[in-house]
Amino acid sequence: MTHKTSKIRIIPLGGLNEIGKNMNAIEYRDKILVLDCGMAFPDDEMLGVDMVIPDISYLIKNADKVCGVVITHGHEDHIGSLPYFLKQINVPVYGTKLTLGLISNKLKEHGILKDTTLVEVGFNQRIDIGPFNVEFIRTGHSIPDSAAIAIHTPMGVILHTGDFKIDYTPVDGQVVDLARLAQLGEEGVLVLMADSTNVERPGYTPSEKIVEETFNRIFQSTEKRIIIATFASNVHRLQQIFNAAFKYGRKVAISGRSMVNVVSVARELGYLDIPGDTMIDLDAVNDYDDDKLVIITTGSQGEPMSALARMAYNEHKVVEIRKGDLIIISASAIPGNEKTVSRIINQLFKRGADVIYEPFQDVHVSGHGCQEEMKLLHQLTRPKFFVPVHGEYRHLRQHSKLAESLGMPPENIFLVDIGTVLEFTKDTGKIAGTVTAGKILVDGLGVGDVGNIVLRDRKHLAQDGLMVVVLTISKENGSIVAGPDIISRGFVYVRESEDLMEEARKIVKDSLATCEKDGVTEWSTLKSVIKDSLRGFLYEKTMRKPMILPIIMEI
Amino acid sequence: MTHKTSKIRIIPLGGLNEIGKNMNAIEYRDKILVLDCGMAFPDDEMLGVDMVIPDISYLIKNADKVCGVVITHGHEDHIGSLPYFLKQINVPVYGTKLTLGLISNKLKEHGILKDTTLVEVGFNQRIDIGPFNVEFIRTGHSIPDSAAIAIHTPMGVILHTGDFKIDYTPVDGQVVDLARLAQLGEEGVLVLMADSTNVERPGYTPSEKIVEETFNRIFQSTEKRIIIATFASNVHRLQQIFNAAFKYGRKVAISGRSMVNVVSVARELGYLDIPGDTMIDLDAVNDYDDDKLVIITTGSQGEPMSALARMAYNEHKVVEIRKGDLIIISASAIPGNEKTVSRIINQLFKRGADVIYEPFQDVHVSGHGCQEEMKLLHQLTRPKFFVPVHGEYRHLRQHSKLAESLGMPPENIFLVDIGTVLEFTKDTGKIAGTVTAGKILVDGLGVGDVGNIVLRDRKHLAQDGLMVVVLTISKENGSIVAGPDIISRGFVYVRESEDLMEEARKIVKDSLATCEKDGVTEWSTLKSVIKDSLRGFLYEKTMRKPMILPIIMEI
Repeated sequence: MTHKTSKIRIIPLGGLNEIGKNMNAIEYRDKILVLDCGMAFPDDEMLGVDMVIPDISYLIKNADKVCGVVITHGHEDHIGSLPYFLKQINVPVYGTKLTLGLISNKLKEHGILKDTTLVEVGFNQRIDIGPFNVEFIRTGHSIPDSAAIAIHTPMGVILHTGDFKIDYTPVDGQVVDLARLAQLGEEGVLVLMADSTNVERPGYTPSEKIVEETFNRIFQSTEKRIIIATFASNVHRLQQIFNAAFKYGRKVAISGRSMVNVVSVARELGYLDIPGDTMIDLDAVNDYDDDKLVIITTGSQGEPMSALARMAYNEHKVVEIRKGDLIIISASAIPGNEKTVSRIINQLFKRGADVIYEPFQDVHVSGHGCQEEMKLLHQLTRPKFFVPVHGEYRHLRQHSKLAESLGMPPENIFLVDIGTVLEFTKDTGKIAGTVTAGKILVDGLGVGDVGNIVLRDRKHLAQDGLMVVVLTISKENGSIVAGPDIISRGFVYVRESEDLMEEARKIVKDSLATCEKDGVTEWSTLKSVIKDSLRGFLYEKTMRKPMILPIIMEI
Repeated sequence: MTHKTSKIRIIPLGGLNEIGKNMNAIEYRDKILVLDCGMAFPDDEMLGVDMVIPDISYLIKNADKVCGVVITHGHEDHIGSLPYFLKQINVPVYGTKLTLGLISNKLKEHGILKDTTLVEVGFNQRIDIGPFNVEFIRTGHSIPDSAAIAIHTPMGVILHTGDFKIDYTPVDGQVVDLARLAQLGEEGVLVLMADSTNVERPGYTPSEKIVEETFNRIFQSTEKRIIIATFASNVHRLQQIFNAAFKYGRKVAISGRSMVNVVSVARELGYLDIPGDTMIDLDAVNDYDDDKLVIITTGSQGEPMSALARMAYNEHKVVEIRKGDLIIISASAIPGNEKTVSRIINQLFKRGADVIYEPFQDVHVSGHGCQEEMKLLHQLTRPKFFVPVHGEYRHLRQHSKLAESLGMPPENIFLVDIGTVLEFTKDTGKIAGTVTAGKILVDGLGVGDVGNIVLRDRKHLAQDGLMVVVLTISKENGSIVAGPDIISRGFVYVRESEDLMEEARKIVKDSLATCEKDGVTEWSTLKSVIKDSLRGFLYEKTMRKPMILPIIMEI
C-alpha cells in the first residue's frame, strides 16, 4: 500500500501519563519495531497486585508484523515485561552488552532464555531490523551501557533518548555521545522522544563522581562498620563503593538477591572492576573487624522483605544492625516510598546505628537530567516534532512547555496518552487514531485475572471488612431450615461486639420472616432484602459499610 | 507525700516517634496538667481507619487528678482528640482566642460544647491551673495565636514550644516573643520540650510574607480565573490571598466545608480582615468574569472528596475546572500524600488548566523552623534538660544531635517514646518508669473496636480476597446434605476462572469424603481440612493466599 509506505507511525504503549512500563511501537511498511518492554510497580489502589505490565493486545493482533524489540538499558521499567511479551511474541531482542546480560538473567529465571534470540549491538553500530536501521548512541544514566536509539527511516530519524542525563565525569569514563547527537541534529531529526522525569527540577543533575567524594570522606573518618544500601542496578555506585573500600583497607560483602545477581553479571561482563581480594563472602563478615568491613545491601526503598529491613529487624541470617554501625542510604525515595524509607531510617536509629541519608550528605545523585540538560538535548538535536515520554501528565506538560520556551511550535508537540497513534511524513505529523493500551495486572501467577471488579472488592473488604450471612432453605416449601448464621471478618472485634452481631442476626431473621409471610421465595430478592436490612442497620450503628455476602443453600 | 511534692513528672502521651496526636501529661503534687490533645491520620497499614487518637487510659485511671488541658494552637494534631478526651474527662480547656474559637466549632459538632468550660488566656498572661502556673508566650506558626507554654513550678520552668518557627515579618505583625524566651533562659529553664519537625532542613524557613509577593506577581500578570488550594487553618495565607485579590480588583469565594468554617471563625474573632465587599457567595462565581475572581478551596493534599478534587473531576456543584483557569497549589505534600497531590495536579493539567506549584514558584512556606531557628531557640532558652518532641525517631534523634552540637551533655537529653515517665528535680532528671500509651483507632462511630486482629484480617482480604466454603451437614449422622458451595470475592475474575472454582469445589469435596470415611465429624477438624486442602491447591495454581472461610451449618 502506498499509504503505508509513505508514513511512519509511533504508538506509545507505556510510560506516558504514568511512571514505568515504558514501551513504544514504531511502524513502517507493515513492520513493527518495539522499543523497550518495561514493568511498573502497582500504585496504592492496586491492592495485592505484584506488578503492572503494558497491555500488548495491539501487538498480539499484529504479531506477524513485529520484527524485534530494542532495549535502551537494563532497568526493570524497561526490561521487566520481556518474559510476558516474549511468551506471546517471540522475536529477537536487541541491546548493549550489559543490558543483554541482565535480560539473560531474567529470561533464565522465567525458563525462556534458550528460546530467545538476543542480539548484542555496540555503540555507534547500526543494525537493520526489518525496514528499520537502528543506531545505539551512548548516553549517561544510573546503569552502564545505557543507549539512546536513533531509528533511521526514509521519512527521517526518530530519536528516543531512553533514560537520560549528561554526566561529564562518569565513573566509567564513557561520556554521553554529544557529538553524535549534534550530528544527528545537523542531519535532521524528524521526531524526538525524550525523558521527562526530572523536568520539574531546575539546573543540572550533579555527576555521579560527587558520591565517591562523599564515600571517601566518610570512609576516611570512621572506624565503624559501614553498611550501604543502594539500587542493585547502579553498577557505577557499586564501583565507587569498591574503590573507596579498597583505598581504605576494607573488605566488601554483598547482601540481597538482586544485588548478588547484578554484581555477578556486571563483574563477569567487565563492568565492575573489583580490586584484588576486596570481595568476601557474606557468611564471613563476622570474621572481620568493624573498621575492615563494608556491606552493600538492597533495601534502600525500605522494602519490608529486603536484606536491609531484615538486618534492621534482626531477621537476617548473618548481619544484625547494632550500635557502632554506620549505615548509608545511598538512594532517594522513589515517589510513593517516602514512608517505608522513613520507617527503616527510624528503625536503624532505634537499634543505635548512625544513619547517613540525604540531605545531610551527598550520598546520592539522580540518573535523570534536569532542565538545563534537557535544554541542551533539545538544542543539539533540533527535532521537527517532539513527543515527551517517561512521566506523569504533569511532567509531559512541563516538558512541552520547556520545548515551547526553546522555540518549538506548540502544534509540533504531541502531548499524548498511551495508545495514541502518531503518524509522520517527512513534513507532517498528526494524531491518526488510537489502539488498545493500558495496564495488565500481575498477581502471583495470574496475568490479567485481577481487574476492576476484583480490585473494587478488595478495596471494599480492606475498608470495612465483610459480613457473611448463610441460611439453608427447604427445596420443597422455601422455608428456612438452618440459619441465618452471621460471620464477620475485618469488621469489628467480635468478642466485644456480641450484642451487635446478635442484633444483626435478629434483623435478618425478621426481614426474612416478612418475606415468608409475603410469599417471597426468589433467591435474588431474599439476598437483596438481607443486604438492604443489614446495610442500613450497620451503618446506623457503626458508620461502616462492610461487604455483605448472603449465601443461600438448599436441601 | 514528700516524694511527690519534690518532683515533677513529664509523661509524653503522643507526638514522639510519630507525626501527630500530640499530647503530654505534666504531673506535680498529685495533679496532672494535660498539654495538647491532638489526632493523627492513619498510616497506610491502618486499612479503613478514619483517625488515630492517643490512648489515654493512664489519664482515665487518674481522672480525679487531671485539672485541665492547655492547648498550644488550633491545628487538628493538637486539638483533634478533644471531643473523645472530654467525653471521658471533663475538665476546663485553656487556650488563646482563635484556638478556642476553633475548638468551640469542633465541640459543637460533637454536641458537647455546652458541657465544656473554655478559658481564654492572653499572651504574657499567667494563670494558675491547680499547682501549675501557666504562661502563654507568642510564637510563629502557620496559624495565628500559636503559643509556647511555660509551666512554672517550684522545681523550675518547663517550656514547651508547641509548633514553632521564627518569622520576623509575620502577616499579622505579631512576632514571636523572643525577649520573653530569652528572659526565661536568664531565669533558668529546667526542661525544654521543642518541635523537631524540620530538624532535617538546614538554614531558616522563609517568612510567610514571601508568599504574598508571589501572589502579587501572579495576580498582576494574569487575566485567568484564579483558584488557590491551601490549608484551611492557615489564616495568614488566607489574609494574603484576600489582600492580593483586593489589590487587583478580584472578588473571593470560598469552597470546602473546613475552609468555610475557618473563614467564618477567623473573621468573627478579628483574625481575618476582609476588605470591603471582597467576599462573595460561592453560588455567585459564575456571575463574574474570570479576571475578577479568586476561589479559595480545600484539597491541597489531593484528598479525593475535597472541593478541589470535585472541581477537577467535574463533580462540584458550582465550579468546574476548565481551560483558562489558573490553579495555585499553595501547600506542600504532607509525607505520605505525594501521590494524591500528584494525581490532582495531573488531572488539573488534563482539564487544560495551568497549575502553579512548588518548586516552580514560592507559593508555600513551612510553618516549622529549620536548623538555624532551632539553634537560636536552644541558645536563648538554655535549658538544663531537653526532650525533643513532634517527630518520628529520626527527627528526635537529629534534634538530640543538634542539642549536643550546642554543648548540651548527652545525659541531659531524653530521647524517649510515648508512655515514658520522666522525673525531674531542680537538679536531676531521670526515666522513672512507663505508663500505658499508644494508638486508639477511630473507624466510623467505633473508638477502639478496630485493633490488630481486625486490621490483620483487612490486610489479608485486601491482598488476595477471600473464598467462602459453606456446607450443611446432618445433625443425626454428620453427613453432608448440601454443598460444599464456594463463593469468592476479590480473588479472581470468577467468570474467567470457572474451571479453577470447579476444581476447588472438587478438592473440598474429596477431602470431606476422606473425613467421612475416617469418621471425622468434629467441626473444627473439618474446617482445618477444608482450609489446608484449599490453601495448598490455590497457592500452587495462583501463588495467592486468599482468606479461606469455611462455614458449616447443621440441620
